[in-house]
Amino acid sequence: MHVSELQQLLRDFSAEREWQRFNTPRNLALALVGEVGEVAELLQWLTDAEAAQIATASGDDAERLRQRAGEEVSDVLAYLLLLADSLGVDVERAFTDKLAANAEKYPVHLARGSAAKYTDL
Amino acid sequence: MHVSELQQLLRDFSAEREWQRFNTPRNLALALVGEVGEVAELLQWLTDAEAAQIATASGDDAERLRQRAGEEVSDVLAYLLLLADSLGVDVERAFTDKLAANAEKYPVHLARGSAAKYTDL
Amino acid sequence: MHVSELQQLLRDFSAEREWQRFNTPRNLALALVGEVGEVAELLQWLTDAEAAQIATASGDDAERLRQRAGEEVSDVLAYLLLLADSLGVDVERAFTDKLAANAEKYPVHLARGSAAKYTDL
Amino acid sequence: MHVSELQQLLRDFSAEREWQRFNTPRNLALALVGEVGEVAELLQWLTDAEAAQIATASGDDAERLRQRAGEEVSDVLAYLLLLADSLGVDVERAFTDKLAANAEKYPVHLARGSAAKYTDL
Repeated sequence: MHVSELQQLLRDFSAEREWQRFNTPRNLALALVGEVGEVAELLQWLTDAEAAQIATASGDDAERLRQRAGEEVSDVLAYLLLLADSLGVDVERAFTDKLAANAEKYPVHLARGSAAKYTDL
Repeated sequence: MHVSELQQLLRDFSAEREWQRFNTPRNLALALVGEVGEVAELLQWLTDAEAAQIATASGDDAERLRQRAGEEVSDVLAYLLLLADSLGVDVERAFTDKLAANAEKYPVHLARGSAAKYTDL
Repeated sequence: MHVSELQQLLRDFSAEREWQRFNTPRNLALALVGEVGEVAELLQWLTDAEAAQIATASGDDAERLRQRAGEEVSDVLAYLLLLADSLGVDVERAFTDKLAANAEKYPVHLARGSAAKYTDL
Repeated sequence: MHVSELQQLLRDFSAEREWQRFNTPRNLALALVGEVGEVAELLQWLTDAEAAQIATASGDDAERLRQRAGEEVSDVLAYLLLLADSLGVDVERAFTDKLAANAEKYPVHLARGSAAKYTDL
């Protein structure tokens, strides 16, 4: 699906419930923080090794964790797209512009394999 | 653009720089928090009324603020999509599943215009 | 109570439960984010005017909100102090040093009443 | 120093600069998020092992990292204490109440050494 389709689904969802007036930039920024907090809670007591296995592990526990991760990521994405809307941001254009700027900022031949660049990201 | 295209751009960007090993769930969750912090900084001293005008105001200041908002939203989106990848989450599927679950949780005829539902969101 | 007493209470609490090995910098940073997310949720759908009344309003609803705010602030503080411990940070010293640095950065005669300084905070 | 002394220093700092009107609950919650974002950035690309060494490592790099960690922790603490003020929260009382509640929720003989309890924390 296009990003713009996801946004339209969210707009329709809000409009049907007459929730648009709650969708202000500061409300949505705080709501975004709430959902990012739930992503953090999911990972807070796992070791790096345990967290790395979530993507591929089999079994009920892993499946449940992946499921919950999907829900939290979706909540963050929903509030992020609504926030972009509330700020008049064209997400696709902003995204590709930013990626182009980063490509210039971190040239392949200088950035390769180095975490150093990250300090300025 | 499809969400999956954005994800592919990010994967290519990381692969070219050999940064994949940095893209672990906990690294990306912390990076996501860093970028959400920048979104928050953008809005922290604005009144609700001032923030509401960002989307539509004209003039250099408004244009600059919208531009910066676009950059921060893009950074959050980039880390969110990389995080989803690192967790084995299919973003489109998780998103539409979650929206369907929310539609059931907040039926239109009950939720209309009420902020009450938000307390359980 | 002294900040150091609060820290000692937290250390004892962890030690009694043999939880010290969970108290690593990155675990605690993520846990801190989780609790900050709960603070944000508390305020996300309130208007600025409604939020400003929490401190002084009377009645059961206001009392309940203030109670919950106290719990969330405490959770953030607990993880922040444990995080400081895990990073070898002397909180009181760091705090007074930072305040002195800010006093120099924002001289009273220049900063008075202006939100402009905030952009560089 | 007492927590209340830290709070008084912050109140004086704000009053001298006539910044009190900026210290609203939602402004301070967003500012808190901004500073937590900087804590996260400090730790985002470190391994758990690298982060664990910050507290005790010697050398200029370690010293610099510890110094910066102290600054970020201080910024988070400052906004947290101002936020508590803006919400009418008595920090010391809320903190000791919450710790007592947690002591009941996680009895020593059940919680010892187990990360399981964390899922409900």
